[in-house]
Amino acid sequence: MAEFFLGVDLGGTKILTVVADHNGIILASEKRPTEAEQGPEKVIDNIYATVLDVLEKSSVRPRDIIKMGVGSPGPIGISEGMIYMAPNLYWENVPIVKLLEEKVKIPVILENDANAAALAEKWFGAGKDVDNLLYITVSTGIGGGIIINKKIYHGVNDGAGEVGHMIIDPAGPRCGCGNPGCLEAIASGTAINRMAGEAIRQDKDTLLKELFINNQEKIDGMMIADAARRGDQIALQIWHKAGRYLGIGLANLINIFNPEMIVLGGGVMNAADLIFRPMEESLKEYSFESNYKSVRICQALLGEEAGVRGAIAVAMGERLLR
Amino acid sequence: MAEFFLGVDLGGTKILTVVADHNGIILASEKRPTEAEQGPEKVIDNIYATVLDVLEKSSVRPRDIIKMGVGSPGPIGISEGMIYMAPNLYWENVPIVKLLEEKVKIPVILENDANAAALAEKWFGAGKDVDNLLYITVSTGIGGGIIINKKIYHGVNDGAGEVGHMIIDPAGPRCGCGNPGCLEAIASGTAINRMAGEAIRQDKDTLLKELFINNQEKIDGMMIADAARRGDQIALQIWHKAGRYLGIGLANLINIFNPEMIVLGGGVMNAADLIFRPMEESLKEYSFESNYKSVRICQALLGEEAGVRGAIAVAMGERLLR
Repeated sequence: MAEFFLGVDLGGTKILTVVADHNGIILASEKRPTEAEQGPEKVIDNIYATVLDVLEKSSVRPRDIIKMGVGSPGPIGISEGMIYMAPNLYWENVPIVKLLEEKVKIPVILENDANAAALAEKWFGAGKDVDNLLYITVSTGIGGGIIINKKIYHGVNDGAGEVGHMIIDPAGPRCGCGNPGCLEAIASGTAINRMAGEAIRQDKDTLLKELFINNQEKIDGMMIADAARRGDQIALQIWHKAGRYLGIGLANLINIFNPEMIVLGGGVMNAADLIFRPMEESLKEYSFESNYKSVRICQALLGEEAGVRGAIAVAMGERLLR
Repeated sequence: MAEFFLGVDLGGTKILTVVADHNGIILASEKRPTEAEQGPEKVIDNIYATVLDVLEKSSVRPRDIIKMGVGSPGPIGISEGMIYMAPNLYWENVPIVKLLEEKVKIPVILENDANAAALAEKWFGAGKDVDNLLYITVSTGIGGGIIINKKIYHGVNDGAGEVGHMIIDPAGPRCGCGNPGCLEAIASGTAINRMAGEAIRQDKDTLLKELFINNQEKIDGMMIADAARRGDQIALQIWHKAGRYLGIGLANLINIFNPEMIVLGGGVMNAADLIFRPMEESLKEYSFESNYKSVRICQALLGEEAGVRGAIAVAMGERLLR
C-alpha cells in the first residue's frame, strides 16, 4: 500500500505545506499567507487550500495519506492538540488538531516548531549520523529542540527546550519574557539590533548611523552584518559580544548534555562568518575539555525547510525508526 | 535462583559497601577508610575486605552475586571501566573495573557518583513515582544526575549532568574549574564559606567573626547556618544570596528540561530551612509558568545512603524495569 504524509509549517506570516512519500521525500509543496489576524477558521481554510494544492500537484490520493504533521509556534500541548499561546498568530487556546481533523479528515499530530526543526535536522539534515543532538535556532528569539535516542525530548508537559531563556547574566538586559539576562536577551537577532540601536543613539563613530538614516531609521541584522564585513569596529564588536554570549550558552548546554552534536539554525546564522569565531572561542573556553572534544558544532542544513520537513518527520513517527 | 547484588560507594575518605537482594533491599553494610593516598591497589584491597564482610554478615554466597555496582567520583568512562580523574582520590586513569573484577571475581559496573545518587532517588527515594527527574547535589561542589525514562542520561561520553558548571554570572567569582560565575562558584558550600570569609575579612558586624575565632579560625556551613538561625543579618544575607543563585540555576534547568521533579541532596540541604525560601522565590520568578507549575522540588530522601543505593540500582540494571 502506498503511504504518504503531509507536513505543515504554520508560521506567523506564511503556511508552508508539503506532501512526502514513505522515505520522507517531498513530492510537492505550496505556500500561502497565514492571515492569522482573520482568526483560526480562516487559517484552517488556508491550510486546507494548501493541502488540496499539494495533493493535486503530486497526484497523491487523499486516502493514501497516513498522517499530517503540523509544526507550530508554542507553547503547545501535544496530547491535547492545543496551541496554548502563539503571539505571532495572536492566538490563545486554539484546538488546532480538532479543527484540522474535522476539515481535512486526516489524523493530525502537532509539534512545537523548534522541536520539529530539530527532528528534521536529525533525520534529513546535519544530524543524520547521530542519535542525540541539540538544535538551536538563533533568530528574533532563541529556541531549541532536544533529540535523545532519535526522538524529541518533550519534558513533562511539552515545555522542554527553552534554551533561549537560560539566564546567563543576571546583570544583563531584560528579555521579552521579563527575566534579566536570558541568552535570548543578549545573543539573539533582537539583541544584536538593540546593541546597534544603542551605538547609534550614543552617536558612536560607526557606519551603522549612515545605514540607519539611509533605511528610514530602521536597522536590521543584515545591515549590521554588512557594516561589520566592511570593517566597522562597532558592528564587529556587536557580533563579537553576541558570539561570546552565545558561546557561554552553548558551553552550559555542552556541560549539561554532553551532546554528540549541536546544530545551529535561524537567521542569525546567515552571519556565521561573523558570529562563529567568537562563539567557538568562548564555548571552548567554558566547556569541560572532554565534553568539548566530543561535540560537533554544525550549521543547520535545511534552512527554511527545517520546519516543514520536521512536520513530515513528526507525521512519519515510528516509521522513521524502522 | 537467588539473585543478590553488591553496591560500593567509593568516596574520597571512606568506602561504603552493601549487599542487597533482588528487590534492592539491603541485607548488610560495611564501612572502611578509603586510604586513597596509598594507591589503587590498597583501595581495591579495602573494597575487597568490605565485600567479604558484607557477605559474611548476610550469609549470601559469592556465587549468588550477579553483579557489583561501583559509584565513583569522576570523570569516568563507563564502557571503558576507567576512572579518568578523581581529585579526591588523587587518581588519574585507573582501570577500576578490571582491577576489581580480577580481585572480586564478579562482574563490575562503574557509575559516576552523582548519577548513582540520582538513580537511587528515582528507584528507592523521592522520585519513586516519577520516570523523569533531575537530581542535584549541593555540597562542596554542585553536581547533577539526569534521569530520563527511568534511566541515567549519560551523554556521548559519560560527561552529562555537570549542572554545577553552568555559568550564570560571568561577572561572578571564579570557580574551581577556572570559569567565572559557575553555579558552583556562587551557590555551593564552598561559595557560602567564601562569602562568610569575605564578611569576616571586611570586619562586618556579624556573629561569624566570633565563631571564626572560637573555632581556630575556621568557618564551615554549619556555623554559618547556626549564625543565621540566631538572626545574624550577614549570615542570613549569605544564605539568601546563595539561595537566589541556586534558584536561577534551577529555573534554567526547569526551562530546558521541563522536568517532573527536581531532587535536591548534598550537605548544604541540611540548611534547607535557610536556603529553600530564597531559592524557591527566584526559581518561581525565573521559570516559565507552565514549567514551574508542573515541577515538584523535593529534598533527597536517601541522604548519605544515596550513593551506595545507586550503586545497587546500577548493578540491578534492567532488572529494575521488570
